[in-house]
Amino acid sequence: MARLEVTVDQIGPLDQGTMAAMAERLDQLTKPQGSLGRLEELAIQLAGIRGTVALFVERKIVIVAAGDHGVTEEGVSAYPREVTGQMLALFAEGRAAINVLSASAGAGVIVVNAGVAGEPPRSPEGIVNVRLGPGTRNFLRGPAMTREQATAALEAGVDVAERAVAEGADLLVTGDMGIGNTTAAAAIVAAVTGADAQQVVGRGTGVDDAGLARKTAVLREALALHHPDPSDPLGILAKVGGFEIGVLAGVVLAGAAQRRPVVLDGVVSGAAALIACGLAPGATAYCIAGHRSTEPAHSRALAHLGLEPLLDLRLRLGEGTGAALALPLIDAAVAIARDMWTFEEAGVAQRAHE
Amino acid sequence: MARLEVTVDQIGPLDQGTMAAMAERLDQLTKPQGSLGRLEELAIQLAGIRGTVALFVERKIVIVAAGDHGVTEEGVSAYPREVTGQMLALFAEGRAAINVLSASAGAGVIVVNAGVAGEPPRSPEGIVNVRLGPGTRNFLRGPAMTREQATAALEAGVDVAERAVAEGADLLVTGDMGIGNTTAAAAIVAAVTGADAQQVVGRGTGVDDAGLARKTAVLREALALHHPDPSDPLGILAKVGGFEIGVLAGVVLAGAAQRRPVVLDGVVSGAAALIACGLAPGATAYCIAGHRSTEPAHSRALAHLGLEPLLDLRLRLGEGTGAALALPLIDAAVAIARDMWTFEEAGVAQRAHE
Repeated sequence: MARLEVTVDQIGPLDQGTMAAMAERLDQLTKPQGSLGRLEELAIQLAGIRGTVALFVERKIVIVAAGDHGVTEEGVSAYPREVTGQMLALFAEGRAAINVLSASAGAGVIVVNAGVAGEPPRSPEGIVNVRLGPGTRNFLRGPAMTREQATAALEAGVDVAERAVAEGADLLVTGDMGIGNTTAAAAIVAAVTGADAQQVVGRGTGVDDAGLARKTAVLREALALHHPDPSDPLGILAKVGGFEIGVLAGVVLAGAAQRRPVVLDGVVSGAAALIACGLAPGATAYCIAGHRSTEPAHSRALAHLGLEPLLDLRLRLGEGTGAALALPLIDAAVAIARDMWTFEEAGVAQRAHE
Repeated sequence: MARLEVTVDQIGPLDQGTMAAMAERLDQLTKPQGSLGRLEELAIQLAGIRGTVALFVERKIVIVAAGDHGVTEEGVSAYPREVTGQMLALFAEGRAAINVLSASAGAGVIVVNAGVAGEPPRSPEGIVNVRLGPGTRNFLRGPAMTREQATAALEAGVDVAERAVAEGADLLVTGDMGIGNTTAAAAIVAAVTGADAQQVVGRGTGVDDAGLARKTAVLREALALHHPDPSDPLGILAKVGGFEIGVLAGVVLAGAAQRRPVVLDGVVSGAAALIACGLAPGATAYCIAGHRSTEPAHSRALAHLGLEPLLDLRLRLGEGTGAALALPLIDAAVAIARDMWTFEEAGVAQRAHE
């Protein structure tokens, strides 16, 4: 587990000095102090992450990890399992929602096969293959994966993210694909936060009432079977997680270790962040919540992490779409800090009326 | 008033046929139906506005109108009155927040002097001059403007917007500048919605507790003095409005008449939309609320108009900044409708699990 430990140890605090300098600069710009609200907080966080007030976010990379889930045997999804592999191929072809939204936001996409059942039917050349298995095992019959697989998934995510940073990524985005993975994500959120099945279950991509009842029962049974220990993130990942969730948790850790902001998508990314920040609490400061999804477990995860989402557009697609939609707000925060004039430069009166 | 009436008469309903066609197309794309939430609603609205499913929003124009307010005599703002003219000049120089955020969103900016006291000190060549007066009169001593000035302000806004559309604008954004104008906007919101002073007053760009108390008293006195008639939008604009608010109301009307989406900024744009949609209720369907500002009056205005804001980032700057920040979401909605593959094109299984 040396590689994972090294990454966790690399994660340091944000640079308080540059954060103070950025706050001071923002207060000198031609606007009432604090009037750009959340955008100013973003600029300050980015300055603390990068250790400079001369911000730039040129190269943005969305890492979409896909994996299958044994628990789909229990009828927890509205879609058949083979859709995971079909969508993985579509990501590689560049015509899925995440490709379109990444392009719209000026971001690149890295597609990762973290553990899809069967081989993707087309375009395997566009896919990073770290396949940890042919999908997880059904966690109603035992752990989803071994502890060794969980570590390997995290380390695979670290590898992918470190390579992206080495190739120039200024910012990372997490995205997921996996039929059944909102069930695994909800189980992780319940395990970490202590919520019960009823409180975290949601309709995912669109199960009906019967599906929702099945999903709730599956979650309740899984939590009763595994008794996951909230203080053992790796154990939680192994017991009820997913390969793509482990990979994305590794991306969060490597992003923080490499001092890059990590923009989180919805509930599956939120679950990955809970695992990552459980292993390295300091990683949370490097996370930006792109949006709030409609999944109840996502709001619980965000509250646990203390993250305020940038968008709330009733999205429930995954793939990184909600995070990709938030990227222009990050560009905007950078532009404000870089391009606006100060009161002095502009010759505008700064003093109050009385 | 012929010109204004012609514009109001031009406003037709959204095209229900293209909206249905867009909804059908969105349901065929490789994502669970409705899973892109608010983004899908935006695509459908845009199709209804433009009367086509082949959407494009190439040229986006932010119209920032500035005006001064006689009511600043009462100490309702944290900034001195001369800031309005100074900021107008800064907009023309391209270094204010709205310039930076418009550039970040790929939008152009048209700067309008609707009625600033004194002449802007620099760069008058970048400013459209429709100056209706040297600021409004103090509405605690009588109406802010004459009914004729109110009509002229609306028609000036119609002119500016029609010219922008003639020059190729696919989408319009409203922005404002005016020391004291959150007081005028709150008065309009109170007059239209029937709320009392306490319910609509806010800190604007940042008054302290004493300023807030003064502002509340001023609002209460103005409403008692003028007894504005909720069914007479033009009368409300004349009694407690502002020149820039009238111009922006004209922009909303012309945008709707020209079948262009109009993205609204915060409380001042919201007040303008209340005037416009009071004159022409059909105009509301062409409006997109860019964000929810921290001003209480803004939430009341949005509720009255039935608009759900795209962003909620605790902004309180004005200038069009919150609307400009929302523009990439509109680009994203267009991109989704245009570039994503359908299930059939992608060869992805669409049927449900059971």
